Amino acid sequence: MTRCWIADGGSVREASVAEAVAASKTMNVWIDLEGGDEPTVTEMLRPLAIHPLVIDDMVTEVNRPKVDNYGDYIYVVLHSARWEEARPSIRELDIVVGRTFLITYHDAPTRSVDAAHEALVRRASLLCDGPAELLHFILDVLVDNYLPIMERLATEIDELEDLVFDPHSPPNHARIIRLKRGMSALRRIVGPQRDTVLALTRDEFKPIPANMRPYLRDIYDRIARVQDLLDSYRDEIATVLELHVSMVSNRLNEVIKRLTVIATIGLPLTVVTSYYGMNFEFPEYKSGHPHVFSLGLLALSALATMWYLKRRHWD
Amino acid sequence: MTRCWIADGGSVREASVAEAVAASKTMNVWIDLEGGDEPTVTEMLRPLAIHPLVIDDMVTEVNRPKVDNYGDYIYVVLHSARWEEARPSIRELDIVVGRTFLITYHDAPTRSVDAAHEALVRRASLLCDGPAELLHFILDVLVDNYLPIMERLATEIDELEDLVFDPHSPPNHARIIRLKRGMSALRRIVGPQRDTVLALTRDEFKPIPANMRPYLRDIYDRIARVQDLLDSYRDEIATVLELHVSMVSNRLNEVIKRLTVIATIGLPLTVVTSYYGMNFEFPEYKSGHPHVFSLGLLALSALATMWYLKRRHWD
Amino acid sequence: MTRCWIADGGSVREASVAEAVAASKTMNVWIDLEGGDEPTVTEMLRPLAIHPLVIDDMVTEVNRPKVDNYGDYIYVVLHSARWEEARPSIRELDIVVGRTFLITYHDAPTRSVDAAHEALVRRASLLCDGPAELLHFILDVLVDNYLPIMERLATEIDELEDLVFDPHSPPNHARIIRLKRGMSALRRIVGPQRDTVLALTRDEFKPIPANMRPYLRDIYDRIARVQDLLDSYRDEIATVLELHVSMVSNRLNEVIKRLTVIATIGLPLTVVTSYYGMNFEFPEYKSGHPHVFSLGLLALSALATMWYLKRRHWD
Amino acid sequence: MTRCWIADGGSVREASVAEAVAASKTMNVWIDLEGGDEPTVTEMLRPLAIHPLVIDDMVTEVNRPKVDNYGDYIYVVLHSARWEEARPSIRELDIVVGRTFLITYHDAPTRSVDAAHEALVRRASLLCDGPAELLHFILDVLVDNYLPIMERLATEIDELEDLVFDPHSPPNHARIIRLKRGMSALRRIVGPQRDTVLALTRDEFKPIPANMRPYLRDIYDRIARVQDLLDSYRDEIATVLELHVSMVSNRLNEVIKRLTVIATIGLPLTVVTSYYGMNFEFPEYKSGHPHVFSLGLLALSALATMWYLKRRHWD
Amino acid sequence: MTRCWIADGGSVREASVAEAVAASKTMNVWIDLEGGDEPTVTEMLRPLAIHPLVIDDMVTEVNRPKVDNYGDYIYVVLHSARWEEARPSIRELDIVVGRTFLITYHDAPTRSVDAAHEALVRRASLLCDGPAELLHFILDVLVDNYLPIMERLATEIDELEDLVFDPHSPPNHARIIRLKRGMSALRRIVGPQRDTVLALTRDEFKPIPANMRPYLRDIYDRIARVQDLLDSYRDEIATVLELHVSMVSNRLNEVIKRLTVIATIGLPLTVVTSYYGMNFEFPEYKSGHPHVFSLGLLALSALATMWYLKRRHWD
Repeated sequence: MTRCWIADGGSVREASVAEAVAASKTMNVWIDLEGGDEPTVTEMLRPLAIHPLVIDDMVTEVNRPKVDNYGDYIYVVLHSARWEEARPSIRELDIVVGRTFLITYHDAPTRSVDAAHEALVRRASLLCDGPAELLHFILDVLVDNYLPIMERLATEIDELEDLVFDPHSPPNHARIIRLKRGMSALRRIVGPQRDTVLALTRDEFKPIPANMRPYLRDIYDRIARVQDLLDSYRDEIATVLELHVSMVSNRLNEVIKRLTVIATIGLPLTVVTSYYGMNFEFPEYKSGHPHVFSLGLLALSALATMWYLKRRHWD
Repeated sequence: MTRCWIADGGSVREASVAEAVAASKTMNVWIDLEGGDEPTVTEMLRPLAIHPLVIDDMVTEVNRPKVDNYGDYIYVVLHSARWEEARPSIRELDIVVGRTFLITYHDAPTRSVDAAHEALVRRASLLCDGPAELLHFILDVLVDNYLPIMERLATEIDELEDLVFDPHSPPNHARIIRLKRGMSALRRIVGPQRDTVLALTRDEFKPIPANMRPYLRDIYDRIARVQDLLDSYRDEIATVLELHVSMVSNRLNEVIKRLTVIATIGLPLTVVTSYYGMNFEFPEYKSGHPHVFSLGLLALSALATMWYLKRRHWD
Repeated sequence: MTRCWIADGGSVREASVAEAVAASKTMNVWIDLEGGDEPTVTEMLRPLAIHPLVIDDMVTEVNRPKVDNYGDYIYVVLHSARWEEARPSIRELDIVVGRTFLITYHDAPTRSVDAAHEALVRRASLLCDGPAELLHFILDVLVDNYLPIMERLATEIDELEDLVFDPHSPPNHARIIRLKRGMSALRRIVGPQRDTVLALTRDEFKPIPANMRPYLRDIYDRIARVQDLLDSYRDEIATVLELHVSMVSNRLNEVIKRLTVIATIGLPLTVVTSYYGMNFEFPEYKSGHPHVFSLGLLALSALATMWYLKRRHWD
Repeated sequence: MTRCWIADGGSVREASVAEAVAASKTMNVWIDLEGGDEPTVTEMLRPLAIHPLVIDDMVTEVNRPKVDNYGDYIYVVLHSARWEEARPSIRELDIVVGRTFLITYHDAPTRSVDAAHEALVRRASLLCDGPAELLHFILDVLVDNYLPIMERLATEIDELEDLVFDPHSPPNHARIIRLKRGMSALRRIVGPQRDTVLALTRDEFKPIPANMRPYLRDIYDRIARVQDLLDSYRDEIATVLELHVSMVSNRLNEVIKRLTVIATIGLPLTVVTSYYGMNFEFPEYKSGHPHVFSLGLLALSALATMWYLKRRHWD
Repeated sequence: MTRCWIADGGSVREASVAEAVAASKTMNVWIDLEGGDEPTVTEMLRPLAIHPLVIDDMVTEVNRPKVDNYGDYIYVVLHSARWEEARPSIRELDIVVGRTFLITYHDAPTRSVDAAHEALVRRASLLCDGPAELLHFILDVLVDNYLPIMERLATEIDELEDLVFDPHSPPNHARIIRLKRGMSALRRIVGPQRDTVLALTRDEFKPIPANMRPYLRDIYDRIARVQDLLDSYRDEIATVLELHVSMVSNRLNEVIKRLTVIATIGLPLTVVTSYYGMNFEFPEYKSGHPHVFSLGLLALSALATMWYLKRRHWD
């Protein structure tokens, strides 16, 4: 839902987009756009003289995280992440920061922006001193939301690792690959995101006052940690996949071995019964209890074979 | 087809190569050459005083993407891509940009250049203010044409991944390798192409006015994204190939296991029949229905074996 | 346990936190905090005017090693390591260094800090000339404590490598993976830790006098060596894991081969006994000792098969 | 063969080493040395005051490509490549470039140098304006000679890839490894060679006039392309080797599977014949044609097994 | 053995450590220490005012190659290598270079230092013009001593590669791993050693005159080449290990296949003999020579099976 705020003196009040755009000449405003095609957005923001490329980039979805400096304002593309359908899913958030205005654009409800709306009601000061503090708040929530995803990933990997060693688990290739692909999409975003936040802490941008830098550096530290974790997880998931493939193969071979053991135990039985099936009279069958004799002989051969296999550790 | 355009006042008109070259002193022109050997091209472009090395590079096909600065003009080599015969195929496009002229050279019809011819008819302004805008138009279409290829690659990889887990699919090694090789050729181009566009956005080139830079940076963002995707795809196709090899091997072993299971079920049958073939009189065969007795015994052993294998999860 | 020290003239004496904070205006002090939530710590350190972000970072646990320069003081995050439950475990140590004060914060007893308390009792000079020497002492012990862990890792890897070639060892996948994961966590810390110590030796920080630099460079050399070793160990453990998987598979196949050898030796026995079971009168069985004849024949076939397999190196 | 040239006015003439060295004060000369030990070369070149290290490096063979700047002259080490005994082989070429002299040193006839001798006869201008143009000519031929090798490598890899999928090809491990090693030696040279040529195009060297730079940049482009190709080929040959190993293993398993299928078809035959060998009177054998009955029964069991295996896709 | 030299005028003479230290004020000296604990060495070198950290680093063994600049003198740590117990072994050499003194410290006899002692007897000029030339001599020998080790490594790898394809070779895992580990230790040293020598050629150090630089660059070239070779060897040994594992597995499977072939040949024999063991009268056995008939039949079935397997390339 599109919502705008105007910081009037020490308090904030909601307003329409048109009001907010008009007020941005003298007051600090936040224009939060949810959806909207290029002509509409261009028309709405005309008084702010935003470069047409920025608006074009805002309404399309396929950008990488980046920061573009247009002098009086900067254009920042970031991505929030949430856990959906057993893998991380990514959503783009476009931000334009001027001296007196903050424009956010997203296609669907985004948790970091929603949190900012809620916080603004309770704490008007977020917007009163200019948009930089509000920008920091949104970045802060956005990066914090990566952490539960990292935990989910760690849990998933742990679980998959345990399943690798569980002989009764069904094959998990598909699940591992789905996770791997989700992590790969996440890494494609987090790397440039880190560079983007680093640029915000290092370069000189007019709309970002110098005293904001330690706060942005703090956000940078956290996103760098997310990337470190992702690098580790990638190694681990690759190891899990390799082990999984090996385990499936080994488990199969293990079964084949067991069956071969049974065949080996059966072998002397066939030889013995076949032997006594030869066409001549065996003295031992003259005597009274052929069943007792032959079953005894067979049991003996089977036990001898088992003992031999046991001794050689081949069972 | 070789086509040239002269921007005369606010409108454009087609012209011969000679006319365009002559007009380039006072008007903005676009000379689009399709094919042509070195002497011919040298002769055509003599009045523009292009460095012989540039013409030599233009007419040969084996260049990497690059930008060479010759002061009054720059020489840019780029590559367009299209999907042909189930893999991406690459085509070279040579561009010379001067203050009043744009020369493009290609061996065969190229979609980005064709699009520029069409656009020029409708929008004369592309050339009227100098060749930089037309250059941007061609780059824009050229880079946009990478995106459907990326989608095709993603679809192919998804399909191959599904086939990996389909037990009835035929072996796909050759298809995976063909795709891998096409992607490898693409990566060899996209990497230097990214550097080339980056150089265009960063360095100072006389024929490119400063206000073009945000537009070129936008193109750079898209080609960087293409490279990110290619890096991911490379990892995925490698995983698919590895899994494929493992799956072929596992499927084979699975069949061997099944056959071994059958052999194991057959084993007691052989032992039992062999047993009763031994050379002495079995009391149980004296009674009336030997067939019933022995078939029952065999069925019992087979079922007992099956039950045992089932219980041990070896079937 | 929270302990504070004030360097009064040439000697040191223990003090409460409040005393130490108050004394820091005129004397060198060390404030060592163990645990404590954000409001408490903020209240305690208020007179020192530490940036709220620093205190927030201190009391949370998930930081990467880093150094932040706040002009009059610097904030350093480092991690000590110890060997716990068969793998390396990591603990955060937060340090704030001002011109006259050193603040350390940790959640649980830390060996490097404990060693500093002990040393301070014996050698007051550590604190009397400012906090830099004490900082060096703590870093020195902290980095030294990595070395026994490196040795444990080397021993573990050697042991696992030996087990790979021991045919009677149980499968060790889980142990290898646990070690791999511990090493991965260690590497995630040691890399940034190295950069942090490098920054301390290179950049100009007001609280660190220039004559401390060779000593810090010495610490840097040792941590760089730890990282070199970790990189080597990572390669080795990956090789061990791969070999282990191959060995498990090979050992299984070896057993299957042995069993197949037995089956091969049994084959002629079945053929021979089956042959003489055919329904006609064999002259050789007319003569007196059928057992001697047939057992001899069987032994002969078995020995011939064995000799053949031996000669072909198939046994 | 050692050959020297003096550019006298607009024409060139051959001369002895001593003449050429003497003439280098006033005229442009090319001294091409083939073999020769350190004292001899030192003695020959004494008037040119070449640094002893350069001469030492020239006569030994184990250098990496490099350029050393000695002010008035530069020392360049490059390597030519040719295809010998089914793999690329490398040969060192040492070049010293002064303002009026070019010294080349090689142990055996080298194609790029031979080509320069031939060209000089036809085109005296190569040497008349100083040694830089001749240097460019030699580099040009040397780098051009890499291209047929690249094509040979591509052909070899294609061939080996086809053999991987050919079920009747003999094992090719040794051939793949020989190729891999040759490529590895080539890469060890091409990387530093690229850096060397880059240095020639970038840095300021007195003996190389500025107008030579576009020509050297052109050579750089080609050698960079060679390196790109080598990187791709390395990936491909690694994939080929991996696939080859897997294919050998799979082909073996395929044969084992086929043999197991035969054993499975044989199993019911044994059971049936064994069954009817049991020690009692079967009514069905009383009737006239036991052969017809039993062969029919066997054929039936065999066909039933085959049909079952076919239906389960296990054949 | 600790030996010291004083360059007195144009000649050198041996001296005690104390004499040499005293003489270093006015003459060039070389103090070569073999072993010695920290207090002893500190006491010996007190007049030279060496930083305590340097002496501490000298007497401990676990340093990485590095160069530390202390203004009037520099501290260099290098490592010599020799071939011991079938793998490369590494030894530390500590060097302090001042304007008039060279101090070397090593725990055991070192070939490069021994060579310098010998050379000094014959060529006093090595020390007479200051310690830089002697430093170069030691570095030169030290780096030269890496080359025979590289050759040994190449020979070992070639040998192991041949063994991979030799079907009768015993398993070589342990030997490959020992070599791999030795190479890994070597790489850990050679990388920083290269950086160290590069620093000596690039940075400005007071004790090293500018005219020494080309000589040091020459040493740098050689150590860079050693590193290139090590990188190649690492790839090769990894390939060898992988192939070895695959070969062991394939050889096993080959044997299993052969045995399965034998079983397949035996199968019709069992069926045929079992067939004729069925309980009815076969007309063909009525006639005179049952042995001839049945052995002929068996031979025929065996040959038919062999011919079939041969035709399908399954033998």
